[in-house]
Amino acid sequence: MQIKRLGSAIIVSGPSGVGKSTVCGKVRSRMPELKFSISCTTRQPREGEVDGVHYYFISKDEFEKRIANNEFIEYARVFDNIYGTLAGEVIGRVKAGEDVFLDIDVQGALQIQAAAEQNELLKKVCEFVMLAPPSLEILEQRLRSRASDSAEQIEMRLAKARSELSFYKKYNYVVINDDLETAAADVESIIRSQRSRTDHLPEDFLQ
Amino acid sequence: MQIKRLGSAIIVSGPSGVGKSTVCGKVRSRMPELKFSISCTTRQPREGEVDGVHYYFISKDEFEKRIANNEFIEYARVFDNIYGTLAGEVIGRVKAGEDVFLDIDVQGALQIQAAAEQNELLKKVCEFVMLAPPSLEILEQRLRSRASDSAEQIEMRLAKARSELSFYKKYNYVVINDDLETAAADVESIIRSQRSRTDHLPEDFLQ
Repeated sequence: MQIKRLGSAIIVSGPSGVGKSTVCGKVRSRMPELKFSISCTTRQPREGEVDGVHYYFISKDEFEKRIANNEFIEYARVFDNIYGTLAGEVIGRVKAGEDVFLDIDVQGALQIQAAAEQNELLKKVCEFVMLAPPSLEILEQRLRSRASDSAEQIEMRLAKARSELSFYKKYNYVVINDDLETAAADVESIIRSQRSRTDHLPEDFLQ
Repeated sequence: MQIKRLGSAIIVSGPSGVGKSTVCGKVRSRMPELKFSISCTTRQPREGEVDGVHYYFISKDEFEKRIANNEFIEYARVFDNIYGTLAGEVIGRVKAGEDVFLDIDVQGALQIQAAAEQNELLKKVCEFVMLAPPSLEILEQRLRSRASDSAEQIEMRLAKARSELSFYKKYNYVVINDDLETAAADVESIIRSQRSRTDHLPEDFLQ
């Protein structure tokens, strides 16, 4: 007998230099069953990229039509291309009981929060996790240790990071990335704990 | 640099036959750092019981005075004795950043919910977990397999269990005890995930 619960959408973001990709990669290797959300993009597929696996590759016209149709919970224009996440992608998966993982920047996460405010199901299933450095000083050290960046670039990144971190109260969870294994285990416990949420249970779970 | 977060109070309850003691014991062995809440009681200490370790042993007069003073988040009269949990016990520990584990019946958990409604800090730190059977049928089988109980006793227990489970929506989490290890790991993830809650962070965590 399997109880059919709603899955969760776990949105992880954090400023440049916080180690988001590394933590998300570690979470992925700890939880191989976890599905990553598949984004739409207007850019051309690269060698080896498969439609519906790496991205949904759609035309610019199609993308703009869907933006106008309010189908994206977040999107961003990057140079000549657009990238975004369809509401239907997240809703379909959580309804099927799957957990969806979104590794996304702070601007995207704030867009998803705004979308979730308008949709009861998204509101119930979206959990926002901010990855934060142990201190701003440590973040600064990490950014400065990237030899490739100029002093000016570092200042800009740091200012942006400060500004992004200032939104932390809009997130349900703040995970401090002091130690990689601990941070990944913290994110894993957040994802796993959502599976026991009362409001993810079907009404008739106890018959 | 250690960020000083608030701890959590995790209240686990569930009906007779659900395996609450076994699951809580397993959680305890998985998380040796977890503090159990220490109750007050008016009964006499038994051989080997230490005041302030197993219970706070207090007189009946003292207990009644503290009830009148609204110091308990829950208490119960069992025959001639009273047992209860002091608000100060939980508040002191979570303020010190400790997680407190309360293994308590449904009546006690509902009392704690009512107390938490009146207290901002308790509201923030208390999380309620209902342990539930995979189905009512399985619970009935478990209760019937206890050879020592009469048919009438089993019916009474089952009716009580049904009534207790009906409060599940008042709990933040419902953990299904189908497999002991899985249920204990679910409870552990709930406890661990609380440590990353944004509202448990101090205002000045990022300096």
